[in-house]
Amino acid sequence: MMQMGKLWILLLLFSVVLQAAGEQRKELGAGVICITAGTPDRLTPYGFCGEQPQNEALKTFGDGSLPFEIDKILIEKTSRGYRVAVPLADDEKLYGLGLQAQSFELRGKKKHPIVNDTPMDIGFTHAPEPFYVSNKGYGILINTLRYTTFYFGTLQQKEQQGGVSAGKSQVETSTDKLYENKTIGNAVWIDIPGCQGIEVFVFKGPDMKTVVARYNLLCGGGCLPPMWGLGLKYRVKGDFNQNEVMQMSRYFRDKRIPCDVLGLEPGWQTQTYSCSYLWNKERFSNHAAMLEDLFSKGFKVNLWEHAFVHPSSPLYEPLKQLSGDFKVWNGLVPDFALPETRKRFADYHRNLVKEGVAAFKLDECDNSNIASSEQSWSFPELSEFPSGLSGDEMHQTFGLLYLRTLSELFKEENRRSYLDYRSSGLFASSLPGCLYSDSYTHSEYIRMLTNEAFAGLLWCPEVRTANNEKDFFRRLQTVLLSPDAMINSWFLRFPPWLQYDRDKNNKGEFLADSTRMENMSRKLIEQRMALIPYLYAAFAKYHFSGIPPFRPLVFEYTEDENVTTLDDEYLIGDDLLAVPFTEEQTKRKVYLPRGLWYNFDTHEKYEGGKYYEVEFGLDELPLFVRDGTLLPLAEPVQMVMPETVFHLQCVAFGKAVRATELFEDDGVSYNFEKGSFNKLSLSLEKGKVRMNRTGNYRQKRYVVKGVTFVDK
Amino acid sequence: MMQMGKLWILLLLFSVVLQAAGEQRKELGAGVICITAGTPDRLTPYGFCGEQPQNEALKTFGDGSLPFEIDKILIEKTSRGYRVAVPLADDEKLYGLGLQAQSFELRGKKKHPIVNDTPMDIGFTHAPEPFYVSNKGYGILINTLRYTTFYFGTLQQKEQQGGVSAGKSQVETSTDKLYENKTIGNAVWIDIPGCQGIEVFVFKGPDMKTVVARYNLLCGGGCLPPMWGLGLKYRVKGDFNQNEVMQMSRYFRDKRIPCDVLGLEPGWQTQTYSCSYLWNKERFSNHAAMLEDLFSKGFKVNLWEHAFVHPSSPLYEPLKQLSGDFKVWNGLVPDFALPETRKRFADYHRNLVKEGVAAFKLDECDNSNIASSEQSWSFPELSEFPSGLSGDEMHQTFGLLYLRTLSELFKEENRRSYLDYRSSGLFASSLPGCLYSDSYTHSEYIRMLTNEAFAGLLWCPEVRTANNEKDFFRRLQTVLLSPDAMINSWFLRFPPWLQYDRDKNNKGEFLADSTRMENMSRKLIEQRMALIPYLYAAFAKYHFSGIPPFRPLVFEYTEDENVTTLDDEYLIGDDLLAVPFTEEQTKRKVYLPRGLWYNFDTHEKYEGGKYYEVEFGLDELPLFVRDGTLLPLAEPVQMVMPETVFHLQCVAFGKAVRATELFEDDGVSYNFEKGSFNKLSLSLEKGKVRMNRTGNYRQKRYVVKGVTFVDK
Repeated sequence: MMQMGKLWILLLLFSVVLQAAGEQRKELGAGVICITAGTPDRLTPYGFCGEQPQNEALKTFGDGSLPFEIDKILIEKTSRGYRVAVPLADDEKLYGLGLQAQSFELRGKKKHPIVNDTPMDIGFTHAPEPFYVSNKGYGILINTLRYTTFYFGTLQQKEQQGGVSAGKSQVETSTDKLYENKTIGNAVWIDIPGCQGIEVFVFKGPDMKTVVARYNLLCGGGCLPPMWGLGLKYRVKGDFNQNEVMQMSRYFRDKRIPCDVLGLEPGWQTQTYSCSYLWNKERFSNHAAMLEDLFSKGFKVNLWEHAFVHPSSPLYEPLKQLSGDFKVWNGLVPDFALPETRKRFADYHRNLVKEGVAAFKLDECDNSNIASSEQSWSFPELSEFPSGLSGDEMHQTFGLLYLRTLSELFKEENRRSYLDYRSSGLFASSLPGCLYSDSYTHSEYIRMLTNEAFAGLLWCPEVRTANNEKDFFRRLQTVLLSPDAMINSWFLRFPPWLQYDRDKNNKGEFLADSTRMENMSRKLIEQRMALIPYLYAAFAKYHFSGIPPFRPLVFEYTEDENVTTLDDEYLIGDDLLAVPFTEEQTKRKVYLPRGLWYNFDTHEKYEGGKYYEVEFGLDELPLFVRDGTLLPLAEPVQMVMPETVFHLQCVAFGKAVRATELFEDDGVSYNFEKGSFNKLSLSLEKGKVRMNRTGNYRQKRYVVKGVTFVDK
Repeated sequence: MMQMGKLWILLLLFSVVLQAAGEQRKELGAGVICITAGTPDRLTPYGFCGEQPQNEALKTFGDGSLPFEIDKILIEKTSRGYRVAVPLADDEKLYGLGLQAQSFELRGKKKHPIVNDTPMDIGFTHAPEPFYVSNKGYGILINTLRYTTFYFGTLQQKEQQGGVSAGKSQVETSTDKLYENKTIGNAVWIDIPGCQGIEVFVFKGPDMKTVVARYNLLCGGGCLPPMWGLGLKYRVKGDFNQNEVMQMSRYFRDKRIPCDVLGLEPGWQTQTYSCSYLWNKERFSNHAAMLEDLFSKGFKVNLWEHAFVHPSSPLYEPLKQLSGDFKVWNGLVPDFALPETRKRFADYHRNLVKEGVAAFKLDECDNSNIASSEQSWSFPELSEFPSGLSGDEMHQTFGLLYLRTLSELFKEENRRSYLDYRSSGLFASSLPGCLYSDSYTHSEYIRMLTNEAFAGLLWCPEVRTANNEKDFFRRLQTVLLSPDAMINSWFLRFPPWLQYDRDKNNKGEFLADSTRMENMSRKLIEQRMALIPYLYAAFAKYHFSGIPPFRPLVFEYTEDENVTTLDDEYLIGDDLLAVPFTEEQTKRKVYLPRGLWYNFDTHEKYEGGKYYEVEFGLDELPLFVRDGTLLPLAEPVQMVMPETVFHLQCVAFGKAVRATELFEDDGVSYNFEKGSFNKLSLSLEKGKVRMNRTGNYRQKRYVVKGVTFVDK
């Protein structure tokens, strides 16, 4: 009793201290603390997360740790909202803020993570997240839809001395010198204007990988796409009609170029910009027959749309009272923050899903370019929505809630989908969507493949036109080494490998050596198809353990200073290292981290911890394989069907070969969430691959054909 | 008694109606109505205006009119602040928002008028003003320091039909087509987040000129610079020492190139970035002797500084409790919103003024580029100031209050000054400062000379380096046709006419024909000096009547559709029309409005209402003169002193010559505000110029030498 009494007194004192600061703390899951100050907004990103925390998986990481006392995080009310300061060590490096295109490591920068259709270094992105991760092994997240600003060590408080070297003045005569940032801040400052209170989520480590895994598990674990989602997706030209779509479907099968998904662009609708969501009978006289034919060829069909509802749409009247008070392109802006809106929007789309439509592309859910005074097409920040969200808050979550609306529909139908969308935000990890962008700078596209890991997001560096053959193949390699292998020919009549110049393509003027181009493209796509079992296993790990399938080297090799700012290489799963090339690069500098590595194509061996100049051909995936990997490569299929069985030719790299895990289920339903799956362990025994299968899923999707050895 | 009773009932009813809307109206001056809704911010731009309205002058414009009922202006409280909608006619055109660099007519644009050191089309500018003027003859001003957004007819409310052509869908296959702004809005929407109330000022017409005049008179009338302020200003290289400054002063006098002001850059201080405001004895061993020598040569001295106070400055301790809670370059950010801060800052500077310093250049009072994630040098928006201003509010008025601090000091000393500063805002008309920028795009610099008129601002398109000879002289012409004829050699050892390439200039490698360049420059500068009496009269009109000295054609010829978007020509005073050339232009297209016009140099006659291709030489000011003008051209002086008498050679253009007004006073003190000035009317009588002088100022500053006739 005495003991209990003391405990109560301690708890009481603790509570008094917190009350004095006006703050409260609670644990949301193992190693995730929510600090609340003031009266937070009623509608928050975490509130919009439709998934429960994966508590059991979270617990496997333990309680975690922080490099500073949690009460060193300063949360202050100001005249205009709240501000937060988090201690920052001199040698600390920071990452995150969603899908940043133009920066990787964030120290010394000011960032304004706001949704925008044109990524900009100030922080504007298709997928902003007020969430950053430190190499010291913790993460800070502001659970808000407000427009925040982060100052990553750039500010100096009045009482802080010595931020700039004092002493004798040197008169500078260039603005570059004058304005270079000489301040050494000792905190990350975060500005959250407009709110009456705030929730700060603190993710404990001990390392970045754990922090991110906790984040992903808190919102349900990473998404597991349908297995066909890992195949090739080809989007046809926007104005294609039924015959042209069918022609394109025959092209792929005739040429034996693997393709899982055909995507239709606006032309399928009677009215676009804004949308009717009605099949256009002039272009598609019998869309049901077309769908049937496509399905019989093994294609999955993805339909373009955006969320702005045209007056001619059957959705207009049902959504009129459930939308914002301003229109976009004369179309309603649905208030997806309301369950009733999501239900009505989903119910309408259920008809399309019942017709067999496998996915949607959710366009223009980001915002018009907020840095431009023209092309101001989206709803204004001053909009009001029936849910109580204002326009700015809605922008920060619009794309995510749109995706959630449709992915929940698919889940109700017990069909997994894999959608394209153009904006996201916090707590999207479990949603089956890949982000895309029109911005089309290859090096930025590669950088986003490194940044997506810090944000629970998936990114598609889509390919359409190219400057030349090298540019085309380098871009194709990159998209094939991404979560979503998409060729986006929305303004091209023919596949870009036949002609990568837009005007010539649309005139049907093919490249002189288009057959060689086609063959090289097929070879690359087949290499992607060979990796599907491996990729699928990486995604299963994303779902169950929270570890992202694509991640930068600093994520794993945090202590290695050579990878701190390395934003053009990334790991795929546990054992592959991608080193994408851009158009300018015949050779490129590659850093290989500690250990031994093998060239995926030539099998040449490299010692890690060093830089190399390497070459990869245009028709080879630029990959390295970790020493000890038993890599399961599938015989390429034309498409992935529920009945598809993968014939695996394994490659054993190096002398001490580890077991490899694969994930086996129907690949299309959510039955795996109810335990209907197998885990396969492939291991080497006496020069052969032994397969150990555990689980209750009946169908066998993998057969090992053999194994070859590299550097045995 | 009955009558009075009815009136009371009417007033009561009126008040009830307004109360119902939660709004109140009051007249601030003739034709200026303030509508108040909710509880406005305590600290506002109008509250920071140190001047009283010029009520008598305002009354001369009458009560004015509006093209719509004033209660058609919608003011709404939203979940995040306030929003305002103002009716917009289909054929209406809009102007203003402060010193915009990249746009002129605003319809169809979204604008975010925020202070920024890099002007951007989204509305970022050195001098943002939430104030626009309509060609229908009214102005709307939001009296706020909040970050506002204006949507100039780009938004469509849910109930508004037909904003976009309905009918059959055309599938577009380019983003330009897809995202072009097809919305036809019927209102200007204004977003004012964060506030609990708002004041909307409505300026009545009947025309744009009257609207702007009312605005200028409301805040004290336009500034009248000291007469020397209209001469040439030359800023020397940042690290020049005493000898080098003296050398430069001798250069001007030896070469007989007119120059009134020498500007010293950071090197005069012991410590810069941030500032000590202390003379640097290593570079300036005897600055008092230097100043004496400069003054004896007729130079006025302008000192560079910014507002960030270095710990080594004598101002540091006095301002420590009177500054924001974050530092810039290790320097305090003074809270100029507090009278005590202004007093202490001014009192320190009084010592410099007593030494004879005539003006200051107030650098970096704008903000670091808020669109950049790097070079984030200024105080953050999350700053708090003792006055109660937050960082964002302070940014919107920091430069203006800084200028006010020093201009009030000069006024206390009864000495007029003319300062350089880099940010301004609402109600700055009476402050004696010219804005400048580093951005250096010539066409933008010209556009700002057209935009300044809508905003009560003065703009200096400074010259430093050039791409070539043409570029140099075209820029020099433009700055000589601006409020502030400044050569800014802050990173050049020698005047740019000797060498316009930066590196060669600093190596002393002069152009082969530098003497010719020097002679041409002198000739151009002398033409500016000849215009000083005319310019001074235009500024006097700015002060007393509110009519800006520099203004675009749409300001005067509002009904002429050819000038609606004309942003590269402007009127100077009533009778000169400037048509600046840029580097690329040997000839340029010029539009001359109705009436007859004469080429200033060749005297060639043109019929107005038409376009012409015209040429102006590199050493001729590109000006046209209105038919009927009696233009007083002064014999160029080397500098303007209080005792300077201008010898006028008048030119009479055309057949029906009007009288011309000149303004005569000491040119340096504020005695003119107490009535110590003369108005001179020059008119033609029997082929001679008759001068009619009224007023009580004793000294005669103007003597007419003769008159020549053009097209008599």
